[in-house]
Amino acid sequence: MAASETSTELPIRDGEQKAAAEQQIDPWDVQAGQDEQGNALAFDYVAISQKWATKLIDDELLQRFERLTGHKPHRWLRRGLFFSHRDFDKILDKYEAGEPFFLYTGRGPSSDSLHLGHTIPFSFTKWLQDVFDVPLVIMLTDDEKALFKDKLTFEETHKFALANAKDIIACGFDVKKTFIYSDLDYIQGHFLMNIWEFSKLIPFNQVRGAFGFNESTNIGRIMFPAVQCVASFATSYPEIWSDKPPADRTKEIAKIQCLIPMAIDQDPYFRLVRDNAHRMKYPSPKPALIHSKFLTALQGAGGKMSASDPNSAIFMTDTPNQIKNKINKHAFSGGRETLEEHRRLGGIPEVDVAFQYLAYFEEDDAKLKEVEESYRKGELLTGELKKMAITLLQEYVKGFQERRKDVTEEILRQFMKPRKLEWKGNPNPKPKETKPKAPKEEKEAEKSKA
Amino acid sequence: MAASETSTELPIRDGEQKAAAEQQIDPWDVQAGQDEQGNALAFDYVAISQKWATKLIDDELLQRFERLTGHKPHRWLRRGLFFSHRDFDKILDKYEAGEPFFLYTGRGPSSDSLHLGHTIPFSFTKWLQDVFDVPLVIMLTDDEKALFKDKLTFEETHKFALANAKDIIACGFDVKKTFIYSDLDYIQGHFLMNIWEFSKLIPFNQVRGAFGFNESTNIGRIMFPAVQCVASFATSYPEIWSDKPPADRTKEIAKIQCLIPMAIDQDPYFRLVRDNAHRMKYPSPKPALIHSKFLTALQGAGGKMSASDPNSAIFMTDTPNQIKNKINKHAFSGGRETLEEHRRLGGIPEVDVAFQYLAYFEEDDAKLKEVEESYRKGELLTGELKKMAITLLQEYVKGFQERRKDVTEEILRQFMKPRKLEWKGNPNPKPKETKPKAPKEEKEAEKSKA
Repeated sequence: MAASETSTELPIRDGEQKAAAEQQIDPWDVQAGQDEQGNALAFDYVAISQKWATKLIDDELLQRFERLTGHKPHRWLRRGLFFSHRDFDKILDKYEAGEPFFLYTGRGPSSDSLHLGHTIPFSFTKWLQDVFDVPLVIMLTDDEKALFKDKLTFEETHKFALANAKDIIACGFDVKKTFIYSDLDYIQGHFLMNIWEFSKLIPFNQVRGAFGFNESTNIGRIMFPAVQCVASFATSYPEIWSDKPPADRTKEIAKIQCLIPMAIDQDPYFRLVRDNAHRMKYPSPKPALIHSKFLTALQGAGGKMSASDPNSAIFMTDTPNQIKNKINKHAFSGGRETLEEHRRLGGIPEVDVAFQYLAYFEEDDAKLKEVEESYRKGELLTGELKKMAITLLQEYVKGFQERRKDVTEEILRQFMKPRKLEWKGNPNPKPKETKPKAPKEEKEAEKSKA
Repeated sequence: MAASETSTELPIRDGEQKAAAEQQIDPWDVQAGQDEQGNALAFDYVAISQKWATKLIDDELLQRFERLTGHKPHRWLRRGLFFSHRDFDKILDKYEAGEPFFLYTGRGPSSDSLHLGHTIPFSFTKWLQDVFDVPLVIMLTDDEKALFKDKLTFEETHKFALANAKDIIACGFDVKKTFIYSDLDYIQGHFLMNIWEFSKLIPFNQVRGAFGFNESTNIGRIMFPAVQCVASFATSYPEIWSDKPPADRTKEIAKIQCLIPMAIDQDPYFRLVRDNAHRMKYPSPKPALIHSKFLTALQGAGGKMSASDPNSAIFMTDTPNQIKNKINKHAFSGGRETLEEHRRLGGIPEVDVAFQYLAYFEEDDAKLKEVEESYRKGELLTGELKKMAITLLQEYVKGFQERRKDVTEEILRQFMKPRKLEWKGNPNPKPKETKPKAPKEEKEAEKSKA
C-alpha cells in the first residue's frame, strides 16, 4: 500500500451540527451536545481537539510512522478512530534513534467484564506493542472507581480489577513485555513516593477546574489525579527495568519517555502530568499521548458504549446470536424508511452504526470504500450491511473468547507479578550522527595541541 | 502511696493571664497567646481542652487506673503534663475485661535527631506499654513532613525517619511488642485501602476548617489527614495480629480499640477519625486519646522546644556540659533580681523553667513539694534549683545515650519488620458478669418450659 493511502477518509460525521447544548467531556462524565429539540448530536472531536490544543493525526505523521517501522498504520489510525495526539512525533524520534520508551494504558474496573468499546484501546495497544517491541504497563484503577462511584466498595472494584485483567490479557498481550497491576495491590514504595512528590506540586485550585471538583468533593478524589499521573513515570516501576535496580539509576530511569494510548476523555489527567513532569526531583519527559474517539453506542450519534446499559453495547461475553440480535434490533440505521426510498435516495453511512462498526473491523480499505459507495447509492440494503458488520463482530468476539478461555489463574499471576520485562525495541536504529566540528572548534583543538 | 495523692497539684501557671492575641494550636502551627505588650503568654491548656471538648484527667480516673493496673500513675500524669483525654476510661474498661487494645503514637521526622521534648511522648508510651502489656505501633510520617515543609524532599525525610527510629528505640521499647514504620516504606495493601476508604468519607470542606487548608493547599496535604487517621485502625497492620491473618478476620480485627498518647496539637486529626471510624466498611471504635502539654522551651512561658532553635532545646546528643550550660544560661528563671530580694520575696516556681523540668524528671513527690516550698520562701536559690534540674536532665540524657549507642542497624531492622507481635495484656482480667435473669425473664422461661 502506498504511503498516500495510509489515511483513509472515513465518512463518519464528527458533530458538524450546531449544538444548542454544548458537549461535556471529562474523565468522569461524557455527554454529547444536543440540538434545539434535545436530540443528542455526534461528538465533535475536532472541537475538543481544538479546545484542548491537541494535534490531529495527519497523513504526514502516519507516513513517517510507516517509513520508520515498516508497518502499515493500524486501520484505527487510518480511519481516524485514534485521531489526535500529543508528542507522538517525539516517540517516533525515540524509536528512530533506538532510544527506550514504554507504553502505559489503563482501565477503571467498574464492572466484571469488558464490552467491545473497552477492548478497543487494548487491541490498539497490543498492536503498538507488537510494532514497537517495548515494555507495557497496564494500570487497573480499582482505587479510582470506588472513590468516584458511591455505591462501589474497594473490595468490589478490586475483584473487578482481577476479572478485567483476564479480559485484558485475552486481547493478546505478550507476557514477557507486559505488566498488569491493580492499584490497590501494587502501589507502594517508589510509586507511592512519586504520588506524594507529585501531589506536593499540585494545588487544589489546579485540579478543581480540570476535574470539576468543589468543596464537597471527597479528599480521595482530589488526591487521585496524582496517582494516575505518576503512573506515566518510568520510576514508578523499578522492577520492570532491572531485576535489582540500583538506587542510583533512578535519575536515568526517569528519562524514559512514556506513550499513552487512551480515550480523549482522559486527557485532563495527562495535561496535568505534562505540565509538571519536569518539576520532579528526577525530571521526566512529558508523556506522549494518542487519543481515541469513543466507540459509538448501538443507538448511534452522541452515545458511548456503556456497561450499565446492556442495549448500548456488545459485550465480550455475548454469543454470536446475541450479537446478531443486538445489531439487527438496536444498531441505529442510516437506511431509509422503505425499500423504494432507500433505492431512490440511498443510505447515509455517516449515521449508520453498522457501517461504523464495519469501518472499525474491516481491514480491507478497498472493500470498505466499495461498501460505502454501494450503500450511499442505495444498492446495498441495511440488512445486508448489518450482516457484514455482524460477521466481523462475531469473528472479533470469538477470537477474544477463545483467548479468554485460556487465561488461567496462573497466567493472570504471571502478568501481575512485578518483574523485569524483556523487549528489543527498534532492530535497526538510525546511528547517532556525530556532529561535525565547527571550524572554530577545530582551531581551538589545534591550539590545545600546540 | 495513697490513691488520693495520685494527682499532685503542680504550681505551673496555665495561661491564666488575659490574652490580647489568642493562642493558635493546630498540627502544624503552635503559637502562644500574647499580652498587650506583645509578650508571649503561657499556653492556656484548660482553654484548649474546653474549646475542643476534651476531658481533663482527674483524680478519680487516676485512682481507677491505679486500682486496675496496680501501678502508681506516671509522674507526668500525676503532675498534669499529660492533662487531657478522650475515652481513656473506655480503655480502662477494656483492660479490666481483658479485652485487646493497642497503642499507637508517632513522630514527624523533620530533623535527624530528637530533642528532650520529642522523647516525652515516647518515654510515656514506653511506660504505658510496660503497664498494659499491649502491642504498640509507631508511625514515622516522612510523607507528611515533606508535604508540609517546602524545603524538605521525601528522600531527606525518609532518612530522618530511619535516624529518628533509632532514637525512639533508645527510649526503651520492647521489640517483641513494638512495630516502628516509615510511611514511605510501609504503606501498601490493607493500610492503603483504609486510606482510600477513609478519604472517600471526608469532603474537602471538613478538612479545610480543621487544618486551615485553602485553595492553594497542595492536594497531598489535603489527603494526608486520611493517612494519619487510619493509622489508628487495627486493620492497617494485619501482620501484627497473626502470622497469616485470614482475610475473614478483618471485621473482628477492626474492633480492636486504639489508645493514642500524643501532644494536644495533634487532636484535630483524631477528632476526624473519631467522627468517622464507625462509617468504615468494617467499623472501628473511636480511638482513645491521651493529650500532653508541650515541654516548655528553655526561654519559658509560651515557647515549645524546637529543633530549629538550638537555644530553645536540650538535644538528646548534648553532653553533660552542654546541658549544664544551656540550663544555666538560657533557662528562664523565676528567681529575683538580687539575692536580697530573692530571700525577701521568694522565687516564683510557676514561671521557672528549671523548676518545671525538675517537676517532670523528679520522681519523688515529697521531695518536689519540699523544693517548691523552699524556693517560694526564698530559701532555695536559683543556682541551687538549676543544679538539681541539671543533674536530673544529665541522668535522663545519659540513660538515653547509653541505650542509643546499642541500637545497631540489625536492631533497627527488627523493630521495623512487619511481623506478629507478642504481648500478654491484663494478667488478671475481671471475669465477665453473667447478667442475672430479671424476675420477669424467669417467668417467661418458666412459661416456655411449661
